[in-house]
Amino acid sequence: MPGNTFGKLFKVTVWGESHGRALGVIVDGCTPGLFLNEKDIQKELDKRKPGSGNLSSKRKEKVEILSGIFEGKTLGTPISMIVWNKDTNTKNYKNLKNIFRPGHADYTYYLKYGLYDYRGGGRASGRETVARVMAGAVAKKILNKYKTLIESKVVTIPFPEAKTEGDSSGGIVEIIVKNPPKGLGEPVFDKLNADIAKAIFSIGGIKGLEFGLGFKSAALKGSENNDEFTIKNGKIRTKSNNAGGILGGITNGENIIIKVAIKPPSSIEKEQSTVNKDLKEVKIKIKGRHDSCLIPRILPVIESMIAITLVDHLLRQNAIKL
Amino acid sequence: MPGNTFGKLFKVTVWGESHGRALGVIVDGCTPGLFLNEKDIQKELDKRKPGSGNLSSKRKEKVEILSGIFEGKTLGTPISMIVWNKDTNTKNYKNLKNIFRPGHADYTYYLKYGLYDYRGGGRASGRETVARVMAGAVAKKILNKYKTLIESKVVTIPFPEAKTEGDSSGGIVEIIVKNPPKGLGEPVFDKLNADIAKAIFSIGGIKGLEFGLGFKSAALKGSENNDEFTIKNGKIRTKSNNAGGILGGITNGENIIIKVAIKPPSSIEKEQSTVNKDLKEVKIKIKGRHDSCLIPRILPVIESMIAITLVDHLLRQNAIKL
Amino acid sequence: MPGNTFGKLFKVTVWGESHGRALGVIVDGCTPGLFLNEKDIQKELDKRKPGSGNLSSKRKEKVEILSGIFEGKTLGTPISMIVWNKDTNTKNYKNLKNIFRPGHADYTYYLKYGLYDYRGGGRASGRETVARVMAGAVAKKILNKYKTLIESKVVTIPFPEAKTEGDSSGGIVEIIVKNPPKGLGEPVFDKLNADIAKAIFSIGGIKGLEFGLGFKSAALKGSENNDEFTIKNGKIRTKSNNAGGILGGITNGENIIIKVAIKPPSSIEKEQSTVNKDLKEVKIKIKGRHDSCLIPRILPVIESMIAITLVDHLLRQNAIKL
Amino acid sequence: MPGNTFGKLFKVTVWGESHGRALGVIVDGCTPGLFLNEKDIQKELDKRKPGSGNLSSKRKEKVEILSGIFEGKTLGTPISMIVWNKDTNTKNYKNLKNIFRPGHADYTYYLKYGLYDYRGGGRASGRETVARVMAGAVAKKILNKYKTLIESKVVTIPFPEAKTEGDSSGGIVEIIVKNPPKGLGEPVFDKLNADIAKAIFSIGGIKGLEFGLGFKSAALKGSENNDEFTIKNGKIRTKSNNAGGILGGITNGENIIIKVAIKPPSSIEKEQSTVNKDLKEVKIKIKGRHDSCLIPRILPVIESMIAITLVDHLLRQNAIKL
Repeated sequence: MPGNTFGKLFKVTVWGESHGRALGVIVDGCTPGLFLNEKDIQKELDKRKPGSGNLSSKRKEKVEILSGIFEGKTLGTPISMIVWNKDTNTKNYKNLKNIFRPGHADYTYYLKYGLYDYRGGGRASGRETVARVMAGAVAKKILNKYKTLIESKVVTIPFPEAKTEGDSSGGIVEIIVKNPPKGLGEPVFDKLNADIAKAIFSIGGIKGLEFGLGFKSAALKGSENNDEFTIKNGKIRTKSNNAGGILGGITNGENIIIKVAIKPPSSIEKEQSTVNKDLKEVKIKIKGRHDSCLIPRILPVIESMIAITLVDHLLRQNAIKL
Repeated sequence: MPGNTFGKLFKVTVWGESHGRALGVIVDGCTPGLFLNEKDIQKELDKRKPGSGNLSSKRKEKVEILSGIFEGKTLGTPISMIVWNKDTNTKNYKNLKNIFRPGHADYTYYLKYGLYDYRGGGRASGRETVARVMAGAVAKKILNKYKTLIESKVVTIPFPEAKTEGDSSGGIVEIIVKNPPKGLGEPVFDKLNADIAKAIFSIGGIKGLEFGLGFKSAALKGSENNDEFTIKNGKIRTKSNNAGGILGGITNGENIIIKVAIKPPSSIEKEQSTVNKDLKEVKIKIKGRHDSCLIPRILPVIESMIAITLVDHLLRQNAIKL
Repeated sequence: MPGNTFGKLFKVTVWGESHGRALGVIVDGCTPGLFLNEKDIQKELDKRKPGSGNLSSKRKEKVEILSGIFEGKTLGTPISMIVWNKDTNTKNYKNLKNIFRPGHADYTYYLKYGLYDYRGGGRASGRETVARVMAGAVAKKILNKYKTLIESKVVTIPFPEAKTEGDSSGGIVEIIVKNPPKGLGEPVFDKLNADIAKAIFSIGGIKGLEFGLGFKSAALKGSENNDEFTIKNGKIRTKSNNAGGILGGITNGENIIIKVAIKPPSSIEKEQSTVNKDLKEVKIKIKGRHDSCLIPRILPVIESMIAITLVDHLLRQNAIKL
Repeated sequence: MPGNTFGKLFKVTVWGESHGRALGVIVDGCTPGLFLNEKDIQKELDKRKPGSGNLSSKRKEKVEILSGIFEGKTLGTPISMIVWNKDTNTKNYKNLKNIFRPGHADYTYYLKYGLYDYRGGGRASGRETVARVMAGAVAKKILNKYKTLIESKVVTIPFPEAKTEGDSSGGIVEIIVKNPPKGLGEPVFDKLNADIAKAIFSIGGIKGLEFGLGFKSAALKGSENNDEFTIKNGKIRTKSNNAGGILGGITNGENIIIKVAIKPPSSIEKEQSTVNKDLKEVKIKIKGRHDSCLIPRILPVIESMIAITLVDHLLRQNAIKL
């Protein structure tokens, strides 16, 4: 059963190979009557390609909206968005045709499907996240109406100069959702944290995830970890926020706090041992446009996946109020 | 949109309040012709109530299979399983009727639904995991055919004696899936790790999750973190297993390695500050049968959720081979 | 992929074999705070077993609600309902163990699953509709709030005395949904008529379905068939209702008009030719408690499936209004 | 909850307005390693625009495949296909901007979404079926491997010359699926006939549907209607095929026989009464390129929807065999 659709009511379907003709996304279930144009999308896409610094590779990405908008507003019909692949230099990839790159999905795609597009990682390339960010931009427009903000910051990048030695660096980031709508999350399986976890781990390169205090909670006593309730300005609030804004899988209105561990990119110029389809051991050095750290590009992707998940649950919560 | 169904092809639907008449599960999509009886289920259920030690509360749990089995074998039709709630002492809960317990879902259920069953946590009680373990027992029977084993162990329980001081303890556990089927996981959203993450975070009390090296990966260079491929006994294997058995969201046949952070239980006898429905601040001490650490009971639940996820993906992978 | 769940937001999961221990249903997604008790359900169940007349067989059916209700109101959590199979006389079925009954699903279940419960049709028995009617009773309670009524009537029963000659009779029924909520139905695949069609054809024994004029529309010109709009009492209405209340898959507020063709029951006492598992041709006469016409029992089932579909779409429409 | 995705394992997501920039479809879940190119798709698309005769309007439709194919074969990743809207003359539609056309979805889209694209029917236009036919072409390639053929024929078109009088004609068609795979269909809700019914009623303009004898079954006795089993060439077959190839919702290997009633197109040049957004009664004559009968274009659409449903169930049946 295929896995290229995310969300139930705000439904995001993505497609495209790294070096195919284009990548795109269908957003089905967007509220009708919402002002939306290509600038709203492009603004978010541009965050995904910093352009400055030497951590990220560069490819031009310009969104086109092909459906779902009429006279500047969403119709409630599927919004189809596309980014054409314009400068797909496949020269560097032909020599990798039969080689399974360490840390990459070449081998597992081969196991699963019996064939794969070896050019730039094909469907397994981080380039697919373009589609997530386009959908995330739509979700953020909806969250704006609720004054919900998603902010992210870098916690660590241990080896910022890894590129110079043909290597790469992992890192940790933190995301905070400010002023989330209350009551989001569906017991027992579709808890909001469960769906956010799926959303984030569906992004390539994620190895760890924490909500609130995360692993630190595991080192505490209940009396230390529990967030006591109190009344502030006539409203129920918690004194601390160790839980990270979610209780029993449902938002309580406090900030949602998330920490994510990101592995170092697998494509490095340093020589590595590996094998090919003929079951021979070989050496490789991976050249081409490769990020030496995923963080600059992955932050807007993580934000997008969280935004999509929040809007999906917002619509789900909407549905039960008759 | 409700959230009490997990899985797509191996579909698990759960129901029941902690102090209602019963709890149960429907497993829809189980392979027909599988030998299955109540002993297979009871064996797993019994792991969930250790009985010994003072970490866990005690309630009798006896499974009954109501459908889906005929002459000792699965029919391919829905398997309905039930556990009656026999000794539901609700005396201790009446005084909590209007009070939102810290760390519990009382307040968020109230936000979401406008009402909730305050007896023993109602639907938000850990007691709902009985249903998960019954379904997990069916999934494990299927995994047995593939010689896939799920093993779990305690990494830390910092305060084993917390109960004596009216408090509770968090902890960390590790789960290893040995000999998982290859090729499981569906790009791009339904990566196996994404679905396992959802499965695990859907269990109450989980605050952190790692695959393979997890947060340690974030502190490494690519050359250190990548698992190089090699040939062992004529088969493609990795030299290390930092990724934890999953590449690009798909199993490569190496062990799946998972670490989980579990918070201390929220029900403690120590006095806490909180609020009630009238927005008054009050003090509470929570008495009754409460685990002082979730680990003994939660291990079979985590195993069950992983087993269900693996079988669901096994069937999904099956489908694409014509 | 299993098929025992119907609906997306008002989600109905059914289970049980005709001569197993019980049959039941989980309704997940019911609006919280709704008054609901066993009498509401039993009232609908009783319509399914007329008791009088010689068209229908008799088995006692008493509902028990096992979860999802607290202090007389729905919690928003799954509502589990069960009917025990008390008088399952399997004596009449043993001689049918290896024989595929004409018109029945014995052979196709055997093709599909490799085994089947031959007692009274097992899962393929019309008895499974008990579960649909219990769920339909919940849906009707919600429709009451919208003053939406579902009425049904018999159009034809050609052979009311078929039982006396060991035979059975087909028939045609009409269902009218009065005062349906406007705007229900989701283009392009989940049109309301498409989902109602699925709902009705999922009931055993249905062979034809029409909306509005149905097959008569195919014999008309556009100028005859189109329902012209007009203003009545300041509201947009149609002059005629040839479309049957649905335009472009979405309700326009006019009555929904449905006609259904029902085949004669396959279980008859008259001798028939058939085959057994050993591929031998044999003769059979089917004895036991069998309805000689499905209509009396199937009317509340059709109503239930329509009610479930309407409520599901009501919640879906709810979700998009922010 | 949006409704632009059909199928569970062979998942088809469609998008596009009649006079927007393009229409397209994502097919997710196609078997990997299948030979597929644009000619396979174009061949089916061409059936949808007969070009000859005066029953159908003419617009150029050329497919482009944007993803999911590599070196001539399917990758198992989403197949994105697009048809650009090249000659979208919107001149004829501006005067219809505020008028609800009789028989059309203008009014119900307005009820549902609060706005709609009035150009050529927007999303409600029959033009959306381009996307269904592209997906159907992929499904047919898979059915070819099973030697399953879908054939359709016209049963009636009562007014072939309706166009000359500014009117339109309904009609009835029959579709026969020859040599369908056995064992397809999922009890109890996802019976094959239930899913085919949904598939067909999801197409605009369908008012009636029959399987096998359809409404004629309702006029028969059981002894007349039952298809007796027999042995032919060592295989289990039925002597008659009144059921139309499906028993208990599951294929028995006999031909699937379907009859469909199609209403006359709603767009006619004859003057009609209707209303506008200001609740005023007005007269309209609808000009432009309009089919005077849906049949020539709708036959490949019905075939496509049946093909998609069959392949979806083929993959579903595949999944349960371990």
